Amino acid sequence: MTNLLDSLGLDISVTEAGIGVAKRPDLAILNFKKPVHIVGLFTKNKVVASPVRCCKENLKVHKQPRKIAIVVNSGCANSCTGQQGDETCINVVKHLAGKLKLEFEQVFPFSTGEILKQLPENKMIRGINRALESSYQNFDDFAESIMTTDTVRKIVSQNLQINGKLYTVLGVAKGSGMISPNMATMLAYVFTDIPIELDDFKELHREVCNNTFNSITVDGEMSTNDSFIGVCSVSEESEEKSETISKSNNNWSIICKSYEKVCNELAAKIVEDGEGATRVVELKVDQAFSFLDADRVARGVANSPLVKTAIFAADPNLGRILSAIGACAISRFDESKISVRINDYVVIQNGLLVKGYDEKVARQHMATKKIDLLISLGVGSASRKLMFCDLSYDYVKINAEYRT
Amino acid sequence: MTNLLDSLGLDISVTEAGIGVAKRPDLAILNFKKPVHIVGLFTKNKVVASPVRCCKENLKVHKQPRKIAIVVNSGCANSCTGQQGDETCINVVKHLAGKLKLEFEQVFPFSTGEILKQLPENKMIRGINRALESSYQNFDDFAESIMTTDTVRKIVSQNLQINGKLYTVLGVAKGSGMISPNMATMLAYVFTDIPIELDDFKELHREVCNNTFNSITVDGEMSTNDSFIGVCSVSEESEEKSETISKSNNNWSIICKSYEKVCNELAAKIVEDGEGATRVVELKVDQAFSFLDADRVARGVANSPLVKTAIFAADPNLGRILSAIGACAISRFDESKISVRINDYVVIQNGLLVKGYDEKVARQHMATKKIDLLISLGVGSASRKLMFCDLSYDYVKINAEYRT
Repeated sequence: MTNLLDSLGLDISVTEAGIGVAKRPDLAILNFKKPVHIVGLFTKNKVVASPVRCCKENLKVHKQPRKIAIVVNSGCANSCTGQQGDETCINVVKHLAGKLKLEFEQVFPFSTGEILKQLPENKMIRGINRALESSYQNFDDFAESIMTTDTVRKIVSQNLQINGKLYTVLGVAKGSGMISPNMATMLAYVFTDIPIELDDFKELHREVCNNTFNSITVDGEMSTNDSFIGVCSVSEESEEKSETISKSNNNWSIICKSYEKVCNELAAKIVEDGEGATRVVELKVDQAFSFLDADRVARGVANSPLVKTAIFAADPNLGRILSAIGACAISRFDESKISVRINDYVVIQNGLLVKGYDEKVARQHMATKKIDLLISLGVGSASRKLMFCDLSYDYVKINAEYRT
Repeated sequence: MTNLLDSLGLDISVTEAGIGVAKRPDLAILNFKKPVHIVGLFTKNKVVASPVRCCKENLKVHKQPRKIAIVVNSGCANSCTGQQGDETCINVVKHLAGKLKLEFEQVFPFSTGEILKQLPENKMIRGINRALESSYQNFDDFAESIMTTDTVRKIVSQNLQINGKLYTVLGVAKGSGMISPNMATMLAYVFTDIPIELDDFKELHREVCNNTFNSITVDGEMSTNDSFIGVCSVSEESEEKSETISKSNNNWSIICKSYEKVCNELAAKIVEDGEGATRVVELKVDQAFSFLDADRVARGVANSPLVKTAIFAADPNLGRILSAIGACAISRFDESKISVRINDYVVIQNGLLVKGYDEKVARQHMATKKIDLLISLGVGSASRKLMFCDLSYDYVKINAEYRT
């Protein structure tokens, strides 16, 4: 852990700026004093928060290794806040850049919390000043400062060895509701001291995102602030090209696996901590005609309130699953070829209840904390994995009461 | 009421056939002893129940006025039941046709209830025999026999005068959950003694469906059994063509209005009785670039669990509405042109909270049983109305517990 902070030249400062209602740390500054590479993916919601717009602009000019800083607040999303929201965001970035002697483009702002609320500029400025004066903190403090309705800190790390040298991949995320990323999740950051070539890092980041954060859903809601950021170190002796690792390196697949493993575990933590979640389903839709078909069926089933409430009740209500599949706009469909498996129990074959189906057994399989659900469409070879959670009283409670 | 039964030559027989779990009337036979016209629209779900397939086939050959019969059971949807389900459906229709001395094509079967359960043929046959032996009943009994999770009977009637003669349009429907019709609703029947020309009746039926049953959603779930049926009488002296009413008749618009009014009130009853519903929202999306855009935004907002839980809590959580709009796949979007009105209180203008916005006032407007929500996109002139309900603890309760 200390190792990674050192290799990235990273100072973490966290403080209580009083942005949100709750009294808790809500502002974090990550100051990378050594040059690094940064890559990012953002929400596809057409309503985009001010900090997301600013990050995207600043990322565009990132071509060479640079010192950077990241500033994150919870308690306010600074989304749907118009010109005033943009100005606040810019002033916050300017202020931090000045304090750290960086250019505007070297500072990346992130906000999470309530939409349509103006971000209080004075509190942000005072918070930044206070944070920079306090003693440095660690990744756990950072993970805690970005929580909103999250009930647990989400942090995952992974060590790997390349050419006899030890490296770390460490990820931090937040997210619990409004989770159905279509590009990235609420806020997720992955840091590594592996010096990766920038273009290859971008590609790695994008591929991993599709298989991890884009493959989860809590409530089918895409947020206005979803951001998934990667930071990697760069070879210290910039002349020694050999030290920078690219796709052609023998160890590339090890790097990919570690990066994906960290993101996958973070994504799983988000679903497990989904608002009101009591059960997690690892859904796989296979034998689809196309990836798009598989994706549509997976999302149709995972976001169906009737399927989700049945899972909450441990009720093997298979008709709801078939109806949800049939409601999807897919190109190839044959009811008589569908099969469904819950854990290792085959329940539907050729579109019908399997012979000798035993509801008691199905109910036992539905009652596990983690359910493997396999839907085979029987019309092709494309597949899609998606992790989702159930819909319980507590989802309604959390979302009906959190502002009152 | 008696009038309509007489004009249509309609005998209604209802009995307790023991199809479902609950002890209550669950089988109805409607025997039209005079020739009538019948039209129908059905679910667009790719999983289609056996009775829906049978009705569609029998409707295809309906060209001339004929005596018909309708048989409806609740307690089992006869959907996803394969060849056995088809055979049961056919045997039930054959049996009733024999009893009433009708051809197979003159009998229209409907089922509603649990999916993936085989319809018990013996119980249906015995139920039909018993029903036909019992004394005739009325539309209220019919409305009651088709209820599943419905808490109220849904029946609406409307009188109108054409050329000095009094006519009736009467509708009966069921539906509470799995409601997001994309063609028709769960089960809805409209009967009228107006003798309408068949092709014009079909057109009227389709247009009214789009504006009424296709404009509601409870939970975004399209059922496998949705059916919307219209039955009208025919001119008794078939020579006197003048008596049959067509689109060119001066009174056509009065007929359309009555038909739409009946369906609209039935559709509203379904939303008001939506599973767990505590509030009904009459949503209008206007100033959209296209009808498709307006429809997508309306459905995106109406089916958003975060919007629905906020409405349950009477919480004017406007950020969730804007985020739900932004998540829709629409062709023209300009955040700075969106305005939102709750009842007569403008809350969002130019994509921002209106100046002097008072959350207390907004909260009062959200606390009404019926909310008018207007979303103006500011990028065109297309519009879409959609009626929906909130998401409460009871939706989860009803759908998590109904089989246990």
